[in-house]
Amino acid sequence: MATVRSRLAHSVKLATRHTKSRSFSSTSQYGSDTASTTISIASLLDRGPADPNNVCVNGFVRSVRSQKRRSFVDLGDGSTLEPLQALLSPEQAQSLSTGMAVRLKGAWKESRFPESQTHELHVTAIDTLGFSDAATNPIQKKYQTKEFLRTIPHLRSRIPFNSTLLRLRSDCISEITRFLAAEGFTQTHTPIITSSDCEGAGEVFHLESSHKGPISEHDDGTFFRSPKYLTVSSQLHLEALAQSIGNVWTLSPTFRAEKSDTKRHLSEFYMLELEMSFVEDMSVVMNVVEKLVQSITLPLLTSRVGKELLATRTRDGEETGESSEWLRDRWLAMKGPWPRITYTEAIQILQTSGINFTNTPQWGLGFSIEHEQHVASVFKKPVFVTQYPRDIKPFYMLPSRESTDMGETVDCFDLLLPEAGELVGGSMREHRLDPLIASMRSSGMIPHGPPEFISDEQLGSLKWYVDLRRWGSVPHGGFGLGFDRLLGYLAGVQNIRDVNTFPRWVGRCEC
Amino acid sequence: MATVRSRLAHSVKLATRHTKSRSFSSTSQYGSDTASTTISIASLLDRGPADPNNVCVNGFVRSVRSQKRRSFVDLGDGSTLEPLQALLSPEQAQSLSTGMAVRLKGAWKESRFPESQTHELHVTAIDTLGFSDAATNPIQKKYQTKEFLRTIPHLRSRIPFNSTLLRLRSDCISEITRFLAAEGFTQTHTPIITSSDCEGAGEVFHLESSHKGPISEHDDGTFFRSPKYLTVSSQLHLEALAQSIGNVWTLSPTFRAEKSDTKRHLSEFYMLELEMSFVEDMSVVMNVVEKLVQSITLPLLTSRVGKELLATRTRDGEETGESSEWLRDRWLAMKGPWPRITYTEAIQILQTSGINFTNTPQWGLGFSIEHEQHVASVFKKPVFVTQYPRDIKPFYMLPSRESTDMGETVDCFDLLLPEAGELVGGSMREHRLDPLIASMRSSGMIPHGPPEFISDEQLGSLKWYVDLRRWGSVPHGGFGLGFDRLLGYLAGVQNIRDVNTFPRWVGRCEC
Repeated sequence: MATVRSRLAHSVKLATRHTKSRSFSSTSQYGSDTASTTISIASLLDRGPADPNNVCVNGFVRSVRSQKRRSFVDLGDGSTLEPLQALLSPEQAQSLSTGMAVRLKGAWKESRFPESQTHELHVTAIDTLGFSDAATNPIQKKYQTKEFLRTIPHLRSRIPFNSTLLRLRSDCISEITRFLAAEGFTQTHTPIITSSDCEGAGEVFHLESSHKGPISEHDDGTFFRSPKYLTVSSQLHLEALAQSIGNVWTLSPTFRAEKSDTKRHLSEFYMLELEMSFVEDMSVVMNVVEKLVQSITLPLLTSRVGKELLATRTRDGEETGESSEWLRDRWLAMKGPWPRITYTEAIQILQTSGINFTNTPQWGLGFSIEHEQHVASVFKKPVFVTQYPRDIKPFYMLPSRESTDMGETVDCFDLLLPEAGELVGGSMREHRLDPLIASMRSSGMIPHGPPEFISDEQLGSLKWYVDLRRWGSVPHGGFGLGFDRLLGYLAGVQNIRDVNTFPRWVGRCEC
Repeated sequence: MATVRSRLAHSVKLATRHTKSRSFSSTSQYGSDTASTTISIASLLDRGPADPNNVCVNGFVRSVRSQKRRSFVDLGDGSTLEPLQALLSPEQAQSLSTGMAVRLKGAWKESRFPESQTHELHVTAIDTLGFSDAATNPIQKKYQTKEFLRTIPHLRSRIPFNSTLLRLRSDCISEITRFLAAEGFTQTHTPIITSSDCEGAGEVFHLESSHKGPISEHDDGTFFRSPKYLTVSSQLHLEALAQSIGNVWTLSPTFRAEKSDTKRHLSEFYMLELEMSFVEDMSVVMNVVEKLVQSITLPLLTSRVGKELLATRTRDGEETGESSEWLRDRWLAMKGPWPRITYTEAIQILQTSGINFTNTPQWGLGFSIEHEQHVASVFKKPVFVTQYPRDIKPFYMLPSRESTDMGETVDCFDLLLPEAGELVGGSMREHRLDPLIASMRSSGMIPHGPPEFISDEQLGSLKWYVDLRRWGSVPHGGFGLGFDRLLGYLAGVQNIRDVNTFPRWVGRCEC
C-alpha cells in the first residue's frame, strides 16, 4: 500500500508538472509548443504580433525569389489566402524550395513596399520541418485543371483558394449552430443506417455486413437481421423528435446512389434539415429558411473569408469568369424580403416569358433546371415557389387548404436561387392518421382497404412513421437545404465537386 | 412583356405581403403563428411571460387530476423536465387525456401552493390539436424497462428525461463548436464512404450499390468501381486537412460492424476527432482534450440541463441508483489539472494494487475495462495514460523519444474516466516517410523491401495517406473522442443505447 501511495504521489506530482509547464492561452496558437510567440499568419496580418522582435510562424513555402543581396519567401499556413512575405538572406534562402514546411523566426518590420503588405518578417532563424521535391509535387504553381485536382483531394486543399473554401464551411457551420441555438432549436443526431426510404424514390446504397454467417439461430445471416441502407433524408426521424421536443435540426451526411454525373449532384453530401412542430402556417417555416441563409450570407460582406472570396475573382488561375462585383451582388441579393409565389404563378411566368425552353413548362409537370433558373432570374433574388401539384410530390405532404382551378396542390415550397436553381425543399407534413394512410395507398406504397384494417406488416418499415400520428400528433413542417450547394453558391464555385472536400460520385471515390 | 411585368408586380406585392405579415422575433417561439404570445414552457418557467394576462403554450398532456371544483393539468413540450401546471374547470378537463396535444391559453398567476411552482396557468381556452388514446399509447406513466423503450426509439424521446438528454447533446455540440472556433480550429466534413481502413482492424460495413449491372464498359459493376465501406475513423482524412489548413476537427458518424453486445458499444456512433499540425509535444494535444471536455462539463453546474440531470436523481422511474451528489461530484472531478501517467506507471499501479483482476495486468498487454476503471478510480479524476507499447498500437503512431527498460513505446495517450474507462484515444502521428513505410511493413500491411521500391499498387488504398509524407510533411497529432460515451458519462446514463437517439447494434436497427 505504501508503494501505491508513493507511486501516486509521484504520479500526481508528475501530472501537475506536465500540466503547469504548458500555458493554454486562447490568444496563442495551439501549435506553439516551442515558442510562446508562435502565431497564425491570419492573426499576424490582421492584428500584428505581441512582440514585434520575437515572432515565430509555421507554414509552407509558396515561392522563393532571390535577388543579389536579399531573398523573399512567400509563406502560407492555410489560415489566409494571401501569403506572408518574409525577407531573408540569399544564403538562408538556398535551403528552401516550394512546398517545404518550415518554422520562421524573426522581427516584424514595416515594409518598404507597403502596397502589397504593410509589414514583412525579417527572418533570423529557419527550422526546416518537412522537405518537398518541387519537381514531383502534384500541386504546382501553374494552372491545373479542376478535373485533375479532383483526382488528388488529399492534396488540393493545400491550394490557397481551397483553404478559403474550408474556412467558409467552418464559419457557416459555426454561425448556423449559433443562430439556431439562439432561436431555441435543438440540434440532433439522426441515424445514417436506416430501414425506411423517405422519398419513396431514388437509388439508395445498400449495406452489407462483413459477417457473412448467421449471428444467432434466429437471424437471416445479415448484421441487422433485415436489409438496411444509407439515409436519403433525416426528415422522418426529425419528425419523431419534433413531436417530442419541439423545433429540431440536424446537419447530417446524406446519400444517393444515382448515376447523375452533373455539377450539382454528389453521392454523399451534407444536408441541413429542420423540423418545426405546432406550426400550421408554412410561411413560418419559410421565414426560418430566409433568416438562416441570410445569417450566414450577410457576414461575408465584412469577414476575412468574404474578402478572400472576392479577392480570388481578380486573380488568374483560381476561379475564372465572373468578377468580384458579380459575387458581391449575389450576396447583396440575399437581403430580404424574398418573393413568394405559387407554382401556378411560376408556370404562368414561364409560359408568358417568350423563351423557347427545352422542356415546355406545363401545369402538372415538375420544373427542370432551366425553369428554376428563369423564375429566380426574373426576380433577381431567391424566390420561394409554393403549392406544387400533389401528383409530383411525395406522399407525406399536407394538401393545400385552397385548391386551384388546375388541380389539387400540397403545402410545400422550393427555394430557387438565381443562376443556380433549387437550394431548399420543404413542406407541411400530413399529421393526420387516416389521410396519411390514404396518401400512402394512392402512392401505391401499401395495399388498398379501410384504415382500421391496416396491419403492421403492410406498413412495413414505415410503421413507426405512421405511429407518430397515433398519440398526440401535431401540425408540423420543415425543410432540407443542400449544404454543399449553398457553400458553392456563396463562393461562386460552379461545380459541387470543388466545394465538397472529398467528393464522391458515380464511379469516383478517391481516398 | 407587359404581361410579365404585371405578373411580376403582382408577385412582388404578394411576396411582400407574405413576408411582412409574419413577425420573426428572436424572443418569440417559432411555433407562434397563431398568437404572438406563444412561449415555450422553459421560457415561461425561467423568465415569465411578456403579458401575464395573455399567455399561450403548446404541449402534450402529461396528466390530468380533477377535484370537485377545479382540475389540474400537467403539460410538457420537451423544453423542460418539469411540467407546466395549469388550472382549469372540471368541464374543460373532461376533453383532455394523457398524451394528447393541446394549445392552452390563459393568465399567468401566482400559485397558492408555490412549493412546486411559483406560478400556474389559469386556462381560459383550449385548442385540441392531436387526440391520444392513453390505453394504446406505448409510452405509459408507469415504469417501463429500458429494454422495452429501446424497441420504440421514435416514441421514447417523449419521456421527459429523454428530452433532457437530447438537449444535453445539443448544448454540448453548441459549446464545442463555439470553443473550438474561438481557439482557431476549423470544423470540417470528412467522408463517410471510404476506401481506407484507419485502424487496420475491426469489422467494417461494406457498401453495395443498388446498381447491379456495369455502369460503363470500364468498370467492374460496382458503383464506385472498387469496394467501399463506412468509415471507422476520420483521422486519416483529418491528417490531410491539418497539413493544409492547420488545426482541424470534425464531429462525424463512425461505424463498426462488431458483434460487441455491451453497454459501451454501438454499430453507429458520433466521434469527435481533432488533428493539430506543427506540434511536437503531445502534452499540447492533451491540453486541448482537457479544456474541451471541461468546457462542456463545468457549465452543467449552473445550466438548465445540468439542473434537470441532477433533479432526475431524486425521482423514481427515471434513473435509479446513484444520487444527485454522486453526479455533481462526477462533474466537479472534471476540474483540472488531470493527472498524466505513463502506461508503465499504470501497469505498476495495477500490479501493486492487491486486486485480483480477471485479466492479470502485464507490461506488453492492453488494458481491459477493469484495469482502466481502477487506474482512474485511484486518482478520482480523469487520467491520461501515455506511451503504450508499440506492439499493441496502430501503425501510424510515432515512436516515443525515450524508450523504457521494458520495450519500445509510442507517443500516444488514452483518457480514462473513473467508473467508465476509456473516453479518448490520441497520439502523435508518424510524419516521416521512411519510418511510416517501415511501420506498415512490420505491421504486415505491405510487402517487405527497401522504401524506394515501394509501388503504388503495394500501398493500395493507403497510397494517398503515404503521399501526405512526401511534400512538406510536418509533425502532428490528434485524438478521437467517443461523443455518445461522453454524453452518457455526463448524464450518468449507464448504457450508451439510452443516450444515442436511434441506437444501432448487432441485430438491432429500429426505425
